[in-house]
Amino acid sequence: MTLVECVPNFSEGRRSEVIDQIVAAIAAVDGVHVLDRQSDVTHNRCVITFVGPDEAAAQAAFGGVAAAARLIDLTRHEGAHPRFGAADVVPFVPVKEDDMPVCVELARGLAARVGAELDIPAYLYEDAALRPEYQDLADVRRGEFEGLREAILTDPRRAPDAGPRRLHPTAGAVAIGARPPLIAYNVNLDSDDVELARQIAVAIRERDGGFPKVKAMGLALDDCVQVSMNLVDYRVTSLHTAYEEVARRASARGVRVRESEVVGLLPEAALVDVARRALTATGFTRQQVLEARVLDLLTGS
Amino acid sequence: MTLVECVPNFSEGRRSEVIDQIVAAIAAVDGVHVLDRQSDVTHNRCVITFVGPDEAAAQAAFGGVAAAARLIDLTRHEGAHPRFGAADVVPFVPVKEDDMPVCVELARGLAARVGAELDIPAYLYEDAALRPEYQDLADVRRGEFEGLREAILTDPRRAPDAGPRRLHPTAGAVAIGARPPLIAYNVNLDSDDVELARQIAVAIRERDGGFPKVKAMGLALDDCVQVSMNLVDYRVTSLHTAYEEVARRASARGVRVRESEVVGLLPEAALVDVARRALTATGFTRQQVLEARVLDLLTGS
Repeated sequence: MTLVECVPNFSEGRRSEVIDQIVAAIAAVDGVHVLDRQSDVTHNRCVITFVGPDEAAAQAAFGGVAAAARLIDLTRHEGAHPRFGAADVVPFVPVKEDDMPVCVELARGLAARVGAELDIPAYLYEDAALRPEYQDLADVRRGEFEGLREAILTDPRRAPDAGPRRLHPTAGAVAIGARPPLIAYNVNLDSDDVELARQIAVAIRERDGGFPKVKAMGLALDDCVQVSMNLVDYRVTSLHTAYEEVARRASARGVRVRESEVVGLLPEAALVDVARRALTATGFTRQQVLEARVLDLLTGS
Repeated sequence: MTLVECVPNFSEGRRSEVIDQIVAAIAAVDGVHVLDRQSDVTHNRCVITFVGPDEAAAQAAFGGVAAAARLIDLTRHEGAHPRFGAADVVPFVPVKEDDMPVCVELARGLAARVGAELDIPAYLYEDAALRPEYQDLADVRRGEFEGLREAILTDPRRAPDAGPRRLHPTAGAVAIGARPPLIAYNVNLDSDDVELARQIAVAIRERDGGFPKVKAMGLALDDCVQVSMNLVDYRVTSLHTAYEEVARRASARGVRVRESEVVGLLPEAALVDVARRALTATGFTRQQVLEARVLDLLTGS
């Protein structure tokens, strides 16, 4: 048994009774535990985080996709966030770094099942992608629900990896993938100069030649400014590196870090990594964390 | 059910068949898992780390004490480390910070049972101590096996908390306690100046007016020098504080940290604490660590 995390995004952030039913469909599977749910009215979207043993997690994800297809009509959906499906994105995330192959297999199995049983076209992305052009989720979802309706029929490069080669009339399509854990990470600066936050964001993000696997933007909060980041793979650019770089660039402009915040969950390995870097503790490993050893015992690994 | 850690020390570091039998007695209890064992020939002593549900852990500790009493004759024991019992020290350590009261209760119950069933005098120390003068293990063990033989009979301040008021003829006495997790932590300095390491150790340790709950000494290794520490309560003086202080003092003398190392296990909360300090992440909590949430689910807490 391999424990995996799954973080599906659904195109509903306003009707709480719909979100409740999707969560219930997920939580109904034995061994599956919902750890977190967040919904956003402006985005009209919710994100559910759950964990479970491999096959149970896939079953729960299928239950969530089926519930969303039943309850959400994308022809009536509007929101700030790009989307092309009722169940929009379903990423499997390894709890243990070595378990990425299991997540890839779960994603591909789920795509086949969603295509066959729910009649929804499925695209495999990131580590589960079958073609290089579907590596990036943004490319898979390009044009969104409204734009893909035509393109899926006419453009061979937009054909799904499983299921029918046309959108589901109300549920659209679904992107199913496997990816490393993503860390949402913000550093707040003691300043009211939002331009400073924006300049630091531009300097550090991959898109503009900064650190690999870092997305970033600068924001103004009520009483300070924020560099808001997604660390897409903390093994490539770590929390500690991101923090130190933002702090260094702010300090060069005479601005101090007020505090930083991790939004939502992060993997224990990211913490181990922070300790290794902050303490120059090169040889430190997860095997030295008491709770990690206990978890390994309880999950038989 | 509360999961606890237990780290008993036995006065045998040379005869591996004896250590094997003690480990076997501990591991024989259902639900108990031995995570680590370390023995030292010079100290003639071994340290076994195990975890288990509260009552099972106490039962395993009792099994270890009984096996040691059967197999070790302290009248024939010599070693560099102070000791006064075949099973010398039995500390229970909470896996979760809040569970100290459970560990205190387990220690007191075990002391009563060891006294009654094994006829060995038991002293309760640290958080489990019944009298202030037994708070510190060094005070409990003062005089060791040879010295306590007389003192236990004549000095009312040396009376045990449970069991007979005389040493067991071959197994001596046992100190049973409850304490926060101890972190053995070394910082290696790029230098061959052992005096520097010693001076830093003296400056930072509690005994000489330094940081509370820090023990430290300076050592010469093959190709560098080391400040070797015991962080007796990382919540009082943290890993990060200890590291930064050693690095700062070395840097003031023009010496760099080569690396630092955690010896053995540490609690996840100590890692969370490092992240909070190194990233100025004031609000970060253990509840944001995916594996911690999974462990809570699996242990029903």
